[in-house]
Amino acid sequence: MTNLAAPAVAHGRLAGLDDIVGIGRDARRGGYSRHVWQGAELELRAWFMERAAGLGLDVEVDRNGNLWAWWGARGADAVVVGSHLDSVPGGGEFDGPLGVVSALDAIAMLQVEGFVPSRPCAVIVFAEEEGSRFGVACLGSRLMTGAISADRARSLVDADGVSFAEAADANGVSSRHLGVDRDAMRRIGLFIELHVEQGRGLIDLDSPLAVASSILAHGRWRFDFAGEGNHAGATRMRDRRDPMVAAARAIVAIREAAAARADDRATVGRMEAVPGGTNVIPSRVSVWLDARSQEDSDIRALVGEITERATEAATAEDCFVTVTEESWSGRVSFDTALRDRLVAGLGGVPVLPTGAGHDAGVLASRVPTAMVFVRNPSGVSHSPEEHATLDDCIAGVRALEGILRGLL
Amino acid sequence: MTNLAAPAVAHGRLAGLDDIVGIGRDARRGGYSRHVWQGAELELRAWFMERAAGLGLDVEVDRNGNLWAWWGARGADAVVVGSHLDSVPGGGEFDGPLGVVSALDAIAMLQVEGFVPSRPCAVIVFAEEEGSRFGVACLGSRLMTGAISADRARSLVDADGVSFAEAADANGVSSRHLGVDRDAMRRIGLFIELHVEQGRGLIDLDSPLAVASSILAHGRWRFDFAGEGNHAGATRMRDRRDPMVAAARAIVAIREAAAARADDRATVGRMEAVPGGTNVIPSRVSVWLDARSQEDSDIRALVGEITERATEAATAEDCFVTVTEESWSGRVSFDTALRDRLVAGLGGVPVLPTGAGHDAGVLASRVPTAMVFVRNPSGVSHSPEEHATLDDCIAGVRALEGILRGLL
Repeated sequence: MTNLAAPAVAHGRLAGLDDIVGIGRDARRGGYSRHVWQGAELELRAWFMERAAGLGLDVEVDRNGNLWAWWGARGADAVVVGSHLDSVPGGGEFDGPLGVVSALDAIAMLQVEGFVPSRPCAVIVFAEEEGSRFGVACLGSRLMTGAISADRARSLVDADGVSFAEAADANGVSSRHLGVDRDAMRRIGLFIELHVEQGRGLIDLDSPLAVASSILAHGRWRFDFAGEGNHAGATRMRDRRDPMVAAARAIVAIREAAAARADDRATVGRMEAVPGGTNVIPSRVSVWLDARSQEDSDIRALVGEITERATEAATAEDCFVTVTEESWSGRVSFDTALRDRLVAGLGGVPVLPTGAGHDAGVLASRVPTAMVFVRNPSGVSHSPEEHATLDDCIAGVRALEGILRGLL
Repeated sequence: MTNLAAPAVAHGRLAGLDDIVGIGRDARRGGYSRHVWQGAELELRAWFMERAAGLGLDVEVDRNGNLWAWWGARGADAVVVGSHLDSVPGGGEFDGPLGVVSALDAIAMLQVEGFVPSRPCAVIVFAEEEGSRFGVACLGSRLMTGAISADRARSLVDADGVSFAEAADANGVSSRHLGVDRDAMRRIGLFIELHVEQGRGLIDLDSPLAVASSILAHGRWRFDFAGEGNHAGATRMRDRRDPMVAAARAIVAIREAAAARADDRATVGRMEAVPGGTNVIPSRVSVWLDARSQEDSDIRALVGEITERATEAATAEDCFVTVTEESWSGRVSFDTALRDRLVAGLGGVPVLPTGAGHDAGVLASRVPTAMVFVRNPSGVSHSPEEHATLDDCIAGVRALEGILRGLL
């Protein structure tokens, strides 16, 4: 069959991305801030439901707040494709939405061509992929698969003290029914996520697309340094128990520990000083560590070394530090049979590992899962600078279209 | 004349402090958050006006938002006594309000005793003493004296992007008329501020009261580190330009530079990472430095060394740093004649320097000014732990009463 259809384009981008281009723009940080069940993300959910309905798909919200749009009857052994719509604070335009828009566009193209699937198919939007509001990434997929307990998820709180349970209830998702979704898991035959690349791999390889091989082991740890709040002017240096100084020494130690190991990555992107006044020695400083390594044991060793050095820094300042693991994901290796099938179908595109976490990484331990990456000429992500050219985005939609045609 | 009156007491504290004990309590940080022209501080203003009116004082708001309560006719060569009602985030109960309450109580006692002043007298409440909302401490007294230009003050913005001009206009203080208040300055014959002590001086001296000798030179500087926002997992350590690492190295350098100098004090109590996501290398990190020294030249040398080390830290990380002086106050030596008169009148109480800034420090360059400190058994301030016993508070009110009797 000749491919007659093409993805819809508006203002130099995929029409679906253009539909949502202004939603959640962050004037202070630049880029976009779209957090689960808050203004912008709710608008994106509404947009998704409308767009999916326009394609004749049946939309439902599952027990964990994930959105499903079924092409034809829902059923077992479905081909599920999708990504997320939420962002980090001040994130880029593509991280998440590109995968959702491309999935809908691929189905639209197949429909125009008169293709009739012989197997159930759905587009999924996972809730709270970035963990920007409740601290744990991939919360929707973790709940669905049982990788996080419903009790733990319910008790997560956002910066305003609102719990995930309260936010769910306020958005029509009963917090009592959060948790493992056996019906959903039984329906997923395989899962495919298309995503903008978040590094320079495809720039270096000069290819618009790649298929994923693996995801680094990664986790998040909160380091709470407790000292003595006091007056910045009236307190002599030798009388201080300043948790900011201990936290700063820990951040330097984090950098040094990660840089000394071949492939490890460790980042502090978020920090909170309490009370936070310019003329006040803080009583408490919290630092969030994002750490990633090739192997689970590597990351445990890295975090162990960092914890030791943070404890030394706290002790030197007569402070205390407590370390809390907020999330953990072991190394993911994607299904090799599915990966090889995609690579062959896409004409031998490269295979790439990634350091970024994804819902596909959570699903990979339960069902055959694959990822397709679209080149990012900026080489940066989680940043307003993140980019993908229209041509590469179209290549991604056509790739998904071909994959679905082959699988359905 | 026998002193028949005594300060009113309720629930083990001065009645005036008891009136306002719940206003602005901060459940998250502990203590109190009372910021200029926001809910709690507006309640405190209303309380002050009511309490002053109850004593038959004439209340007015000046062109810079400071409150005045006149005992008898307003006029030149007035004895002005007062402090502030705003707080740092999560501050104590006494810092500011103790001086205001004590001034009103001292007048109330003199009234009960039938004392009639032969010289104008006013209680003043200065606006934005802590600089917690708009970043510059002693904003009300700086504007009144001309120590800050009206243009600069108008353009200061709070964390929500509201300018001082907008906040003033919204609270009945015309932003067009902000600035040097020659009428007010002509009326002030001398100024006295009673304040809870913010260090351990009076604990060590075993005295409930002291009179101030001097205030350290002090200032605030903002260090903005700019790097490259990127993905925490997908970005190799060697490819990073991470301003958080540069900022952390600068905080360590700040501690080391201040600790190596005899009497210098340097603090980072506030820090902001943009965008602030756990899984995001920040694009920008701002660090606020509060630095104090015995002499103006000492602090310039300290900040010079810190700037040099911060620049090295930024360069090492391929980042940039810009340094902005947000406020500056030279060393203050209080009027020796007034100081000696107070010391003698209070039976030879000790004389103490302080590292904390005050509106009295701003006034001191224009009019004879003095401060009375009340012992703080916790030794800490800008903290919920800050304290003063009822007996010491009463001693402070009686001291002010005696001072006013002698001056009026």
